[in-house]
Amino acid sequence: MSGPSRWTLADGRELLFFSLPGRAPAPVADVRPLPPRDPEPSELRFDRATGQWVIIAAQRQDRTYKPPAEACPLCPGPTGLTSEVPAPDYDVVVFENRFPSLAGPGFRRDNDRSARETAPKSFVSAPGNGRCEVICFSPDHTGSFAELPAEHARLVVQAWRHRTAEMLARKEIEQVFCFENRGEEIGVTLAHPHGQIYGYPYLTPRTAAMLAQARENRNAHGTNLFADLLAAEVADGSRIVARTERFTAFVPYAARWPVEVHLYPNRRVHNLTDLTEDELDDFAEIYRNLLGRFDRLYDAPLPYMAALHQYRDEREQADGYFHVELMSIRRSATKLKYLAASESAMDAFIADATPESVAARLRAL
Amino acid sequence: MSGPSRWTLADGRELLFFSLPGRAPAPVADVRPLPPRDPEPSELRFDRATGQWVIIAAQRQDRTYKPPAEACPLCPGPTGLTSEVPAPDYDVVVFENRFPSLAGPGFRRDNDRSARETAPKSFVSAPGNGRCEVICFSPDHTGSFAELPAEHARLVVQAWRHRTAEMLARKEIEQVFCFENRGEEIGVTLAHPHGQIYGYPYLTPRTAAMLAQARENRNAHGTNLFADLLAAEVADGSRIVARTERFTAFVPYAARWPVEVHLYPNRRVHNLTDLTEDELDDFAEIYRNLLGRFDRLYDAPLPYMAALHQYRDEREQADGYFHVELMSIRRSATKLKYLAASESAMDAFIADATPESVAARLRAL
Repeated sequence: MSGPSRWTLADGRELLFFSLPGRAPAPVADVRPLPPRDPEPSELRFDRATGQWVIIAAQRQDRTYKPPAEACPLCPGPTGLTSEVPAPDYDVVVFENRFPSLAGPGFRRDNDRSARETAPKSFVSAPGNGRCEVICFSPDHTGSFAELPAEHARLVVQAWRHRTAEMLARKEIEQVFCFENRGEEIGVTLAHPHGQIYGYPYLTPRTAAMLAQARENRNAHGTNLFADLLAAEVADGSRIVARTERFTAFVPYAARWPVEVHLYPNRRVHNLTDLTEDELDDFAEIYRNLLGRFDRLYDAPLPYMAALHQYRDEREQADGYFHVELMSIRRSATKLKYLAASESAMDAFIADATPESVAARLRAL
Repeated sequence: MSGPSRWTLADGRELLFFSLPGRAPAPVADVRPLPPRDPEPSELRFDRATGQWVIIAAQRQDRTYKPPAEACPLCPGPTGLTSEVPAPDYDVVVFENRFPSLAGPGFRRDNDRSARETAPKSFVSAPGNGRCEVICFSPDHTGSFAELPAEHARLVVQAWRHRTAEMLARKEIEQVFCFENRGEEIGVTLAHPHGQIYGYPYLTPRTAAMLAQARENRNAHGTNLFADLLAAEVADGSRIVARTERFTAFVPYAARWPVEVHLYPNRRVHNLTDLTEDELDDFAEIYRNLLGRFDRLYDAPLPYMAALHQYRDEREQADGYFHVELMSIRRSATKLKYLAASESAMDAFIADATPESVAARLRAL
């Protein structure tokens, strides 16, 4: 596949068109009177009590909130007056978020270390640099990733891979996180099928915790933790949801969420840029397959979060193993799981169903 | 204050009455045809990818869900046929949860260590032992903690302290967590003012993370991390919400939640059992005061979680500092914060308001 076409929005943000074979974008000028961008829209603050960074992005309170369909900023906007995508049509587009939690180039990668070393400085902060992008999966306002035609899903994967490569080339970005939040139940404010891509300037706390476990496992046993977990799930079999020559999907043994599926490539790679074309094809297909199962679980589409865990192939991230974690808060046709005090205050998760029963249901769909 | 009166429910669960001075409970027989209790209602599973225990409590799917007010199981039940509290009246009661996430006495305290040492065993589990209690703050079906009369709020604190002491005396319980979830917005299924008390058989992940930070701080600087944080907040002043001779409440420097207040005693103690009577009086008053501010923030009562962080005065918990963390997901009069993929999948929190602005609003109320 060829690379994307680049365009610039009225306030200087980048817009990238990814096109199906034989198609070409025809953007028009973005003539919206947008205010200039804030070069440093957020602040990072280090929480000494937990050792974790928190992003303080106060200006995001005004972000677009559940607009009517006719005012959707993600639909194609042929006039250049109504949309984030000034074009009569598109296949897949990526653009910088107008209300970013992270933006700008200045963050130092050694920030985490310096936050610890300069202690006992009481209050440690850093500029909220990094990158936040929106990815529109399709020009259609309705629909879902699961309903995309195969080659269209593959194009989204190609866009994710392109963005991963480009962001990882910026050394101030520590971690590239492609994700999708789907459903009003988890707070999605734009119905148009889309995902987001964050370039964090620090290693996120969950990733850091997982890598610490992987390091401990390697030191104790000489093996890769994630490869061990995958092999154990395959050997056990009771939680496998789907398996191909190149990928395996399972409900993890200690699942936290009412519906949770992890999708691993059968060989260890660090991120999407390491996958071969065959693997990328397979990935798009099984990913779409899993989301289709999600939507067949209940009468209504399942609210879900899709999280692509990607790693740099260096230093403390070298033990990483690219995989996707899919999660839903729906615990029955009528009920949601809420993260109340046990989960929110203590990180002590309480699951309402056995992973084996969830896997059996998903397998059967 | 004198100790509670003990009673037994139809299925053998304990019920404790805490009474205001001059009052005495008059329970009747609980004649409900309750099924026998499951002695081991849940399972703990060790998540090797994160190093955290997860509770799998599959039978809780059937727990009581938003009953009508006339069927409230927390209102006094003078007939012994309708309620968890078979009595014509009460002040504060505590009883074992009928749908517990944790129950039974058998868990070993060295479980966490053994889970690590026996690796690379693929799947590590343990019985879900521990204790889950419900605490009814008042016999009135409506109202809130903030609206309790002063001596009634003090009685709740007394009950929390009693339960903390009794559970900490059981060596298989590692951590005692008194908490309140308030509001349908965070999934509360019973409207009657109540909280819960969990006796976890393991150190919860967030507590473990905080203690690891405290240990690192002590090794590096010889001081207590939490005492340092409190002193820094007092010295800075910009995030203080309320302060008395014995307690200080502030929005933390790196707050994660749209509304977040931490309440510390001015001298370090490990848990409620260490506080003097004067301190307990002060605690009840400032805690109630803070919740009152919460309810005055918007036109409607604020959904919130209240988390009492308590520690054992021994071993890896010795660096602990008793405090309360209050959190709300309401980010404006009409909007909630959702924990979507950045928070849920990566623990990377994005706050929508500066801690200083939130503190200023709460101070002014």
